[in-house]
Amino acid sequence: MPGSMPEPLYLKLANQLEEMIRLGLYRPGDRIPSVRQASKQHQVSVPTVLQAYTLLEDRRVIEARPKSGYYVRSRQSLPLPATARGVPQARSLADYPPLMALVTDVVNPDFVRLGGAHPSAELLPGKKLARLMGSIARLNPGASITCDPAPGCPQLRSELSRRSLDWGRYLAPDEFIITHGATEALHLALRTVAQPGETVIIESPTHPGIINLLSQLKLRAVAIPSSPRDGLDVEATRKVAAREKVAAIVVIPNFNNPLGSCMPESNRRELMTLAEEYGIPVIEDDVYGDLQFEGERPHSLKALDHTGNSILCGSFSKTLAPGYRVGYLAAGRYHDAVLRLKTALNFYNAPLPALTIAEFLRNGGYEYHLRTLRNTFRQQVAKMRAALAGALPEGCKVSDPAGGFVLWVELPKTVDALQLFHEARNLKISIAPGHLFSPGAEFRHYMRINCGYPWSPRIEQAVATVAELVARRR
Amino acid sequence: MPGSMPEPLYLKLANQLEEMIRLGLYRPGDRIPSVRQASKQHQVSVPTVLQAYTLLEDRRVIEARPKSGYYVRSRQSLPLPATARGVPQARSLADYPPLMALVTDVVNPDFVRLGGAHPSAELLPGKKLARLMGSIARLNPGASITCDPAPGCPQLRSELSRRSLDWGRYLAPDEFIITHGATEALHLALRTVAQPGETVIIESPTHPGIINLLSQLKLRAVAIPSSPRDGLDVEATRKVAAREKVAAIVVIPNFNNPLGSCMPESNRRELMTLAEEYGIPVIEDDVYGDLQFEGERPHSLKALDHTGNSILCGSFSKTLAPGYRVGYLAAGRYHDAVLRLKTALNFYNAPLPALTIAEFLRNGGYEYHLRTLRNTFRQQVAKMRAALAGALPEGCKVSDPAGGFVLWVELPKTVDALQLFHEARNLKISIAPGHLFSPGAEFRHYMRINCGYPWSPRIEQAVATVAELVARRR
Repeated sequence: MPGSMPEPLYLKLANQLEEMIRLGLYRPGDRIPSVRQASKQHQVSVPTVLQAYTLLEDRRVIEARPKSGYYVRSRQSLPLPATARGVPQARSLADYPPLMALVTDVVNPDFVRLGGAHPSAELLPGKKLARLMGSIARLNPGASITCDPAPGCPQLRSELSRRSLDWGRYLAPDEFIITHGATEALHLALRTVAQPGETVIIESPTHPGIINLLSQLKLRAVAIPSSPRDGLDVEATRKVAAREKVAAIVVIPNFNNPLGSCMPESNRRELMTLAEEYGIPVIEDDVYGDLQFEGERPHSLKALDHTGNSILCGSFSKTLAPGYRVGYLAAGRYHDAVLRLKTALNFYNAPLPALTIAEFLRNGGYEYHLRTLRNTFRQQVAKMRAALAGALPEGCKVSDPAGGFVLWVELPKTVDALQLFHEARNLKISIAPGHLFSPGAEFRHYMRINCGYPWSPRIEQAVATVAELVARRR
Repeated sequence: MPGSMPEPLYLKLANQLEEMIRLGLYRPGDRIPSVRQASKQHQVSVPTVLQAYTLLEDRRVIEARPKSGYYVRSRQSLPLPATARGVPQARSLADYPPLMALVTDVVNPDFVRLGGAHPSAELLPGKKLARLMGSIARLNPGASITCDPAPGCPQLRSELSRRSLDWGRYLAPDEFIITHGATEALHLALRTVAQPGETVIIESPTHPGIINLLSQLKLRAVAIPSSPRDGLDVEATRKVAAREKVAAIVVIPNFNNPLGSCMPESNRRELMTLAEEYGIPVIEDDVYGDLQFEGERPHSLKALDHTGNSILCGSFSKTLAPGYRVGYLAAGRYHDAVLRLKTALNFYNAPLPALTIAEFLRNGGYEYHLRTLRNTFRQQVAKMRAALAGALPEGCKVSDPAGGFVLWVELPKTVDALQLFHEARNLKISIAPGHLFSPGAEFRHYMRINCGYPWSPRIEQAVATVAELVARRR
């Protein structure tokens, strides 16, 4: 009878491991012993360990990473933050409040910097880039102080063209314009396709920089719900497009900031089809695209653009050097208009940062660096999720990103995240309050947490402190 | 009787020298023998040489430069280009044509680059800056790749504050915002004070970048005549201010590009008074202010601003490193609004170029570099004036700038400078056609000539070629 049958060895091993993980002996993001090690430690055969690990994978307790081993997954018990519903109305952004205190805190090393969306400088190849830049400047001091006129650095445009194959669509060097970070790329794209007073579709929540940009450009926004799992609600987008004239759709398809979501292929197709149907330019912000946690790099929406109707914006600020301010756009049929605008507003780029990044892409081991960085961010995100789950009072919800390095946290409704921001600020902890991520008030009990810094007791303590502040307001 | 009196020695010497200069043995910008040398060469006493040189100074044939010697002046026979008259109407700039071919040619080393307003890299401390940047990046690789949020680099703002004393008005570090070159400064300033459709007063002629910026910002312009001697016509400005609502006055008070004029003190006072009276913000572009040919640095209009109504824009693109894209603005009462806008449009600066320039200003010998650069530009401008005067057909007129490094040339009315541009372009010579310098057609037989490159047979030949093309169209 089954009741009397002895528990199989692999099941015993799996249960034992799961218990250890539950007790915190292995924490989310930690690597567990390799199959060979476990076989020795537990004195069972390799196939038995493999069977146990496969079971734990099925239970979503651990995950295999190619060529790397097995890792403890983020706690699956943590529910995802809620997604808004419905088809919202367009609204003016005249009252959108930037939070100047936040933006200065996130570069202040006195702070525990959970409020930004910056990678730690420790994780970036600062020294190597500095050496490269130094040798480029030494070899050609003239070129390094001479202006680089739009469309900008030919060497970098060639490297981008090479890389575009990984984005699902070959783009020629001439299709790129180099910009002062992705912010300038988004600014040029928006100004080119949308006039003051016109309406733009954005995600809700979305990157505060996009809302601030729209606000200053005097554009109106329809903030379409975006989900932690699948990103932009394409059905709602279609309803808005059918209802009113829309000048542009701004979307972060890959590892949306703050959600970390990655749009499913079918949604992408539907989005691009409807954009074409209604003649709405799609502006995609792909600054996180290189930071997937597993598998291949997700494609850009450009890969599905058959009419030149989309503008791809990207940068190296999340993967190499935020401070180099090197971004780019590929504007499709809007290329000439964007170039014209760039010529008027900010004609020249600095040649040195662009040349340095081009050289790094060519010979510096960018792919190798990315592999390390992705692993690091995945582990940091897992550690932070676990810490938040352990520390925050019940009822809180945390996103489960597929890439990037930020988490989106839903707090109890009684918590005003802006108050929380100020309280934490007094304790030199920076968090990003949810109201910045939407033109409305729906996220006032949300916060975004940066996982771009290596896990440390200082960060662990800060998470505990923030959780305590949350618990008080509950 | 006077008729029989022998010619005094000093007069004989002076006439002899003037003849030598007329014959081209000494050319404009050349140093003539020192008083001591001349005394030996001509076997006359030192006081006699001094008397002769003083006479030649009075005749405006030579000029003394403190601690340097005596130099042949630019030919005084050359008349100045005409100044437009009257009080023009506001006009849309929707049709303003940028000349993309010009802007790419002026950084193309295959061209004789007379079309830009760039200093030659040879004249700038590229190597020293590269060394400084290298050591800053090595010492702190983290900081060099981390973003520098607005208002930007505190070290540079401190150095600017120190320097502001030479501009006639102390500005505290907190009054500055660091920008991506003066172009971004002008863009932020204009967007802050003027809304699309509103009217802005500009000079005619003025820097094409300003007109292109206004055009893209959908602003209208009243282009007020500006003279090669005194710059903006303040009386005409007053009439326009009295006639209609003006959102801003954009002016280059110091060594206007393309005229090289420097506004007299009385005109500056009158301008600032009328701006205050009518409540019109004054945006001044002071990128050439450090490049006077003699005497003290001219003041900024800020020195006369008692109400915070002016916005000073500047950069180090004309004196240190165009390719570093380091500019600044001091926006007076508009500071917060500009900062807000900068935060939305282009929040982060690159820290490395700003830190490098701050260090150069602090310890790099900027004043020493400026002294050399001013001398060089003065000589290059004098040589170019002489070459133009010698080569161009009769009836041409050339500006006589008091600083900077560009010349403004009036050609015969039959010459279409845009045609001339294309003809010269085919011969790999770049000039800037006059129509770019005004929203109207009044300068279509003008051109701007860059003197930022060291004099060379190649440049001399290019001037002769351009002159020949002009002569054919005459």
